[in-house]
Amino acid sequence: MLTEKEIKTIIETGRNFMKMPKEDPDYLTDQQLKKNQPPLVKAAQSNELISLPSNFDNIPLDNDFMHIINSRQSHRVYTQKPLSKLELSYLLWCTQGVKEIRGKSYATLRTVPCGGARHEFETYFIVQYVEGLDPGLYHYLPMTHQIEFIKEIDDAKSFISTSVGGQSWAAKASVVFYYSAVFYRAEWRYGIYAHRVALMDIGHVMQNLYLAATAAKLGTCALGYIDPDYLNAQFNLDSDEECMICCCPVGTIDEKDKQAEADFYAFVKEQNL
Amino acid sequence: MLTEKEIKTIIETGRNFMKMPKEDPDYLTDQQLKKNQPPLVKAAQSNELISLPSNFDNIPLDNDFMHIINSRQSHRVYTQKPLSKLELSYLLWCTQGVKEIRGKSYATLRTVPCGGARHEFETYFIVQYVEGLDPGLYHYLPMTHQIEFIKEIDDAKSFISTSVGGQSWAAKASVVFYYSAVFYRAEWRYGIYAHRVALMDIGHVMQNLYLAATAAKLGTCALGYIDPDYLNAQFNLDSDEECMICCCPVGTIDEKDKQAEADFYAFVKEQNL
Repeated sequence: MLTEKEIKTIIETGRNFMKMPKEDPDYLTDQQLKKNQPPLVKAAQSNELISLPSNFDNIPLDNDFMHIINSRQSHRVYTQKPLSKLELSYLLWCTQGVKEIRGKSYATLRTVPCGGARHEFETYFIVQYVEGLDPGLYHYLPMTHQIEFIKEIDDAKSFISTSVGGQSWAAKASVVFYYSAVFYRAEWRYGIYAHRVALMDIGHVMQNLYLAATAAKLGTCALGYIDPDYLNAQFNLDSDEECMICCCPVGTIDEKDKQAEADFYAFVKEQNL
Repeated sequence: MLTEKEIKTIIETGRNFMKMPKEDPDYLTDQQLKKNQPPLVKAAQSNELISLPSNFDNIPLDNDFMHIINSRQSHRVYTQKPLSKLELSYLLWCTQGVKEIRGKSYATLRTVPCGGARHEFETYFIVQYVEGLDPGLYHYLPMTHQIEFIKEIDDAKSFISTSVGGQSWAAKASVVFYYSAVFYRAEWRYGIYAHRVALMDIGHVMQNLYLAATAAKLGTCALGYIDPDYLNAQFNLDSDEECMICCCPVGTIDEKDKQAEADFYAFVKEQNL
């Protein structure tokens, strides 16, 4: 049980973390010290890579930008229909797709902005319902816009639910994207200043997912609340170097479930808030 | 000068901050303790409120969603033309516009997602070039989609440059949005867990700004690097309760400046990276 004083200290520390810190003029990052740059992406672990289609013109998107902005909402009710492989490919592209490489391998320019173009995130996901893909765990390879299969999962619904601390609504998602941070990829350039900005940067990624899902009439809900120990173990991450930080279930949705979404706020009425 | 050990500790702390912490089952947030909820937004300080136009149909937007996603980039070269008041209004709407209120005043649903719908941010901005608005500092009032004038600034270019630690390119922006966090608005619901998610949430806001600017053929560049002390003083924020955390200059752009943007990476060539 935390004491009042401990709570105050944690909150103070959290607030300070959100603030741009005073710079130490003598501090040099590893990039400034000319240390070797870490790889831009995590290499494939598997030999069996799956190429993804890129004919996004074939997805019937909502192309009214203001309508996308205004109709975006968090969806927690999914109808458990499969995504097409093209839709999965489109969501991966819109969130982490590599558009260009700067230098020999200095930086990737992607469909999202990131401090110093470090793009220190890796995208993993569980496939529950995607046409033409075996259910199981996967990893996105942004340099070649491919994916690799990691392993099967006996009970996908239990996996998903556990991964988000028991929020069972998420288990009806067709796909859940899990985002990890490879810390040193950002620290090499920004050192002690890397972590605050990295959290803002993963927000860019999730917002592109929200809008891409909305444009494709799919539903998602960004979750900062995950079980990192469970996920790191399942995806075999060395948590000293790389850690899961957040996730986004994505599912098919039905207009008639709007009321069910509104029920999420039923407590507001109950508690007369 | 930081010692190696101190650097290691700061980096370790930063990494831990990015991770979802272990939950303390006995910890109760102020919402769980039934403490009074703080206001959803900061009240206007002025009596002279300026209403904003909302006829966004009159802005010639790019309505090709994939083109917006693919053409979004960070812009640091601005042509110093004025925005229309409608364009400013559109950018404010797309980033923090209030679509709906849940309960009597329990939560705002906005054009961006935010943990627990807390929306703990305030939008301030400096107007340098906006048709029909006096240059100076302003504050957005999302409940009524209005703005209030705060004060004049003698030298806007110097103000902007100082606010971002001397990055003088930003001083050619037509408008710079400064985002603050009102800490307790999120802490009331999430307590010690509020701060990590809040940084992801401001990322959602900045990504919507990127895409809204892209769709309207304007340029922006999200900056986590600011001078919070200078900005808090200028906007008269009590930094114990509310602190500036990041900003986004927005300016008019010209296709012919693409090369100048690419020059931002000239060091990659120079250093043979």
